[in-house]
Amino acid sequence: MTVLCKPAVQVPENVLTMEEALSIAGRLHRHHRELPLVLRLIGNTGVRKRHFLQPIEKTLEHPGFQARNELFLSAAKQQVPQVVEQALAHAELEADQIDLIVFVSCTGFSMPSLTAWMINKMGFRPETRQLPIAQLGCAAGGAAINRAHDFCTAHPGSNALIVACEFCSLCYQPTDVGVGQLLSNGLFGDAVAAAVLRGDDEGVGVRLERNASYLIPHTEDWISYAVRATGFHFQLDKRVPKTMKPLAPVLQRLARQHQRDPARLDFYIIHAGGPRILDDLSQFLEVPSHAFRHSRATLTEFGNIASAVVLDALRRLFDDGGARPGGSGIIAGFGPGITAEMSMGSWTGTPSTTTQGENLP
Amino acid sequence: MTVLCKPAVQVPENVLTMEEALSIAGRLHRHHRELPLVLRLIGNTGVRKRHFLQPIEKTLEHPGFQARNELFLSAAKQQVPQVVEQALAHAELEADQIDLIVFVSCTGFSMPSLTAWMINKMGFRPETRQLPIAQLGCAAGGAAINRAHDFCTAHPGSNALIVACEFCSLCYQPTDVGVGQLLSNGLFGDAVAAAVLRGDDEGVGVRLERNASYLIPHTEDWISYAVRATGFHFQLDKRVPKTMKPLAPVLQRLARQHQRDPARLDFYIIHAGGPRILDDLSQFLEVPSHAFRHSRATLTEFGNIASAVVLDALRRLFDDGGARPGGSGIIAGFGPGITAEMSMGSWTGTPSTTTQGENLP
Repeated sequence: MTVLCKPAVQVPENVLTMEEALSIAGRLHRHHRELPLVLRLIGNTGVRKRHFLQPIEKTLEHPGFQARNELFLSAAKQQVPQVVEQALAHAELEADQIDLIVFVSCTGFSMPSLTAWMINKMGFRPETRQLPIAQLGCAAGGAAINRAHDFCTAHPGSNALIVACEFCSLCYQPTDVGVGQLLSNGLFGDAVAAAVLRGDDEGVGVRLERNASYLIPHTEDWISYAVRATGFHFQLDKRVPKTMKPLAPVLQRLARQHQRDPARLDFYIIHAGGPRILDDLSQFLEVPSHAFRHSRATLTEFGNIASAVVLDALRRLFDDGGARPGGSGIIAGFGPGITAEMSMGSWTGTPSTTTQGENLP
Repeated sequence: MTVLCKPAVQVPENVLTMEEALSIAGRLHRHHRELPLVLRLIGNTGVRKRHFLQPIEKTLEHPGFQARNELFLSAAKQQVPQVVEQALAHAELEADQIDLIVFVSCTGFSMPSLTAWMINKMGFRPETRQLPIAQLGCAAGGAAINRAHDFCTAHPGSNALIVACEFCSLCYQPTDVGVGQLLSNGLFGDAVAAAVLRGDDEGVGVRLERNASYLIPHTEDWISYAVRATGFHFQLDKRVPKTMKPLAPVLQRLARQHQRDPARLDFYIIHAGGPRILDDLSQFLEVPSHAFRHSRATLTEFGNIASAVVLDALRRLFDDGGARPGGSGIIAGFGPGITAEMSMGSWTGTPSTTTQGENLP
């Protein structure tokens, strides 16, 4: 069996508060017909602050697709190693014990992927398999866990490293002024996250037991990039926040296939795409709101950090003492497609020192 | 065990011959200091003809990154379905029996990937896993086979579809005049390929038994994209053709780990990156030149069709009657990193009607 160990997460030092975001939106779009709606939507996100690669004045500039992509790569090369080293330390493994690197990012592009650079610079073996994923957006965190899980199952005893490197601020497009785009400007944040999957069933974390994927039919245009000379332009349909209605039954079915009651799992690591996603899903699954507290904390403190959300929410579960030994849970990433990448697992390893309820507000 | 069934391959209707390519290069770059070298290199490729999405006059235009990417998507939507249907027919499966779609392409970008469109339009189940790969270049064909193989191993009885959609002509950059770039303009072609992996060990084809990856240390800049407002700019180092020297021992080691003599395999499906790759590798592996005849035929008739090469070379092996039942072989894709994605397998299913040597020149 494969154990997903404690993720490491790092956010850049530049902080933008909700108040500052509202003030900037109000200033930049003071003549926008739907400014009151935009400000209300941003206010409703509950994102208290976000962390950006650059100070806000620089973030609002667009120096061109090439310069931005170069900035992505240089920042990734600066930040990924520390996060990866911490994730390896959490798993008590060395780089040369890793057999697969899954590198996911939808906010910068390179060929070869940064996996090649990592192998050359960080002590991974030349035989390490490389799996870069650029096109699954926010669902890529869940997909990385699931494909790494498959790999460890297919190659017993092997270990995998997953890295989610998202600098969403590098996809800010000053000329995009649709309501969904302006809302996104108030929602997304930057972060780098990494985690190790141990294939020897050792370590503390989530023993992965089953994974699944689901595409909501005929929603492929609801979350998408327009690819232009100015880079990737994020396009968000206003129906996206309502997608938990079709997805909740999918998660319920998965839990029941696994002989678990979807309303009574021990932990829920859910993509914090926005507040409505979390509110609706907890309601449809008939779980108390605090069951999603780790996802909610990620959203509040970092914003939507794309594919890194599930890894950060899981990190918060670890910091919270983990779940009870043997307790079941679900991890679910949502993204373009609209796709859900889900896995079921159980908590394993050293019993947590705090009980599950202790850190509730 | 998992069987890789007969690939389907389709090339666009516009043909450019070697003579035409040389004439165009001579005309466009008549003042280029190294024109004689460029023409000699193109001549040495042995690429008799290539197939392009558009007529040559259109191919030589650059209408902008956005327009090109839109053209990629509309052409892919036109051509992928037929190729996929043919691949499914070869495997005697229906779309709803597929559990994973691996879609690889380095010549067009979209989010979501075309996997979402395929699920919506072509009868795949919403539960189908999606694995889009954009950053492994020519090695992605091998990677698609290997990751699909891992998936079928991890989920016994499941089936996977792999699609390689490469319109290399859409990455032509009129302003790129380095020798490696001008050579590339005379080397790459367009094609769409697809193949099914059956997880129930049924069907005719290559029973996949082992896979591996290798990155040649410190070569990450040798094959790469520069990402600019004008799209992806291919950059090829002149040391690339010599990379079979470090890779041949890797292939030999893999064969020996699998208790096979690397010089006496029954089939060799090798990435036809260029003529030097095939010449050198056959020499280092100590196999006769005709052992690589299927790869060579792909290069001669279609040019380097990136991630689709290994699928087309494999298709030619099937058309050639296949290998002897139980005969061992290797599949190897090479690409940026510099990465080799390799697998070992054996021929299975209905005995071939021709013996292996019959179609030799």
